[in-house]
Amino acid sequence: MNTRGDNCEPHRPAHPRIFTMCEAGKSDHHSAERCVDFPVSVVLPAGGTGERTGLQTPKQFCTFLGRPLISYTIQAFESMPWIQSIVVAVAKENMDLMTDIIQRFKHRKVRAVPGGSTRHRSICNGVLALGEEERPAVGRPKVVIIHDAVRPFVEEDFLCKIAMAAKEQGAAGAIRPLVSTVIATTSEGYLDHSLERAKYRASEMPQGFTYDVISQAYQRCSESDFEFGTECLHLALQYCGTNAKLIEGPPTLWKVTYKRDLAAAESIIKETLSRSACVITGGLAEAVNLADALRKAVGALDMELDIVPDLMGDNARCLLKEWNFIQVSVSHSCLSEVEAILVALEAENRALLHPVVVIWVHFSRTDELPVSERAPTAITELASTAKHRNILIYGIQLKQSKHWERSASRVAEIASALIRERSPALVGQLLQA
Amino acid sequence: MNTRGDNCEPHRPAHPRIFTMCEAGKSDHHSAERCVDFPVSVVLPAGGTGERTGLQTPKQFCTFLGRPLISYTIQAFESMPWIQSIVVAVAKENMDLMTDIIQRFKHRKVRAVPGGSTRHRSICNGVLALGEEERPAVGRPKVVIIHDAVRPFVEEDFLCKIAMAAKEQGAAGAIRPLVSTVIATTSEGYLDHSLERAKYRASEMPQGFTYDVISQAYQRCSESDFEFGTECLHLALQYCGTNAKLIEGPPTLWKVTYKRDLAAAESIIKETLSRSACVITGGLAEAVNLADALRKAVGALDMELDIVPDLMGDNARCLLKEWNFIQVSVSHSCLSEVEAILVALEAENRALLHPVVVIWVHFSRTDELPVSERAPTAITELASTAKHRNILIYGIQLKQSKHWERSASRVAEIASALIRERSPALVGQLLQA
Repeated sequence: MNTRGDNCEPHRPAHPRIFTMCEAGKSDHHSAERCVDFPVSVVLPAGGTGERTGLQTPKQFCTFLGRPLISYTIQAFESMPWIQSIVVAVAKENMDLMTDIIQRFKHRKVRAVPGGSTRHRSICNGVLALGEEERPAVGRPKVVIIHDAVRPFVEEDFLCKIAMAAKEQGAAGAIRPLVSTVIATTSEGYLDHSLERAKYRASEMPQGFTYDVISQAYQRCSESDFEFGTECLHLALQYCGTNAKLIEGPPTLWKVTYKRDLAAAESIIKETLSRSACVITGGLAEAVNLADALRKAVGALDMELDIVPDLMGDNARCLLKEWNFIQVSVSHSCLSEVEAILVALEAENRALLHPVVVIWVHFSRTDELPVSERAPTAITELASTAKHRNILIYGIQLKQSKHWERSASRVAEIASALIRERSPALVGQLLQA
Repeated sequence: MNTRGDNCEPHRPAHPRIFTMCEAGKSDHHSAERCVDFPVSVVLPAGGTGERTGLQTPKQFCTFLGRPLISYTIQAFESMPWIQSIVVAVAKENMDLMTDIIQRFKHRKVRAVPGGSTRHRSICNGVLALGEEERPAVGRPKVVIIHDAVRPFVEEDFLCKIAMAAKEQGAAGAIRPLVSTVIATTSEGYLDHSLERAKYRASEMPQGFTYDVISQAYQRCSESDFEFGTECLHLALQYCGTNAKLIEGPPTLWKVTYKRDLAAAESIIKETLSRSACVITGGLAEAVNLADALRKAVGALDMELDIVPDLMGDNARCLLKEWNFIQVSVSHSCLSEVEAILVALEAENRALLHPVVVIWVHFSRTDELPVSERAPTAITELASTAKHRNILIYGIQLKQSKHWERSASRVAEIASALIRERSPALVGQLLQA
């Protein structure tokens, strides 16, 4: 499978940040492809038991907004056209779970192989699998990227630098400044000495190696390395004489280690999904006025709105780009406009990777009965069905009156909170602005 | 001011975790007081600019649920009766802000002093201030605890160990295992060697010193130490010959360094506030049945309910203990019961440190009109006023019918989401179960 010729696939973004660049037509896939003109594959050791998070589920399988962490990491790599294949090494007892994840989220470049009893054994299995590729079009890679399944926020620019340096030097790795002073302890538990922080760095992931260096390193290393070692850069130095090039990576490379990191990762994902929304007005003047007032109000809340009359023609780009939709209905109490958005979202399979939020804003004339007295259950039922398809529907009502602009800022506040929190428990509610 | 004789002050908990132990009558203040029978004071350097979080506000002043991070840290120490005083060293430009925080959240053991241009200069200013205590009842401390303002989750048990070890050994510090391998780099940016992870530890906070050791260390150290150093344990070793005792701390000691850590800290605080709620039934059979059904349903969501008929007599303990209240009203559409809870909460000043959630569950007879048709604005207005006092009011409606138990599990789901999210934007809404 030659994926380097593929389009950037805007409707299957890995990671919202990468998606945004890609969709905005500012994709750096192309510049990356110009640099990385050699085959690159990825090994993700994912055999860990997650002891440090204090959770029963290994942390790579913990879900965020309905999707396991490892799927975010896989998708980040899968969205880069110059990555030809990904091998995930998982514990035997999680093989079925992993296969299910690959199928459910339609990952196409991924193969799962059995992990080993230690980190190095798992990585070694992954590297061996790359040498035994079954698909004839996929050759042995020139460079192997090794990454952790629990570092979901890998950025393409940085990965490109690692791949290039690995090809040139044989090995390359991400580093970060030390957050804490590192100290050596005596055997009795007292301070022996502290290291001068400026001279040392934390070794992070991703790391890259030429296939030859990493496979030789694993052929030559000892049982003790396999059992107790953790650092691939060390094996490359000791067994191949390769001093890795070290490149400072962004803070987003951090590893989900403790329970608090799960909350941090979820918050990053939610924040990234909440940066913008598409408002559909139907073109009526009252709805357009309301949309303009909303745009002003959510601007203060750091959200951008794209206002369109409908999702036809050119405006269909919003369907492929936005994670949040606000349908403004003027004096229509029926939900047919929202239903039309659902149909369009499903046709694009948009809610496969992230839950999509659809907010129905009902802007009623003063002489109309409020919706709640006429069709209280319609939105509840629609939302209940949509929730199973990963689409979260909420309603907000406001009345046209002299003071409707004050209500508009309430709509903005409520819509912004609903979009940021993405709470499945509150779908189908009709809130009052 | 001798605070060691004080009660554990259940209504002014520092940190929900400490609060819970205290309130449950299992306070370990008493065991800590038995051990720590000498004066202990705290220095919090808080002059940092927060560059690494990527935020404009220095991270110690970032707010969580309406309160700055540094107030959480201060309150954690303040709630321990054996801590006699706390000195915060802040940059001159933040002195007014700090004074305002101390007043607004009624911190009583705290003094703010001007910080220095580096971490060591700020700590040194704090230690000097402890030697010049103005209040006659507060003597010079035997032990000085140094902690970071941006590590809000300090636990009393662990702090007690640090204080005891500091008194015995002259110096003691918290350590944690290394998360990443530490490597030495060549000047050209290549790997020189990696450290064997098992022999090293990350040096964290809190650290403790006898007053004599830390003040001598600062008297003797060089300008270069003041300018470039960061590690107090190193100064104690170099200038006083004191090898600090190192004690492994819990993972909650981590330092809020990056933007993602702010999200993690907020999530920990919200989770801790959401572990239990008090349901007030009025004693009517229908309400008690509903409360029992709620208890069963939220149990599955990891929340515990304390069911009481009212908040009188012994039941008033709930007012001092819970952060969440659910008032079940049967066929009363007026909000007088919720108003009574508000009055009681304000009398106790309960919402000073954390926002308190009050959910009004209206369980109406089938022949009644829904509340929304009679008094749609009453709850909105009440919630709007209460929000300014840090009390978040939400409403949930359900109808008595054959299938009310299914609705009860919807109430539990909605109430649990409202309590966990504590969204100010959604107060005053009347949700449908």
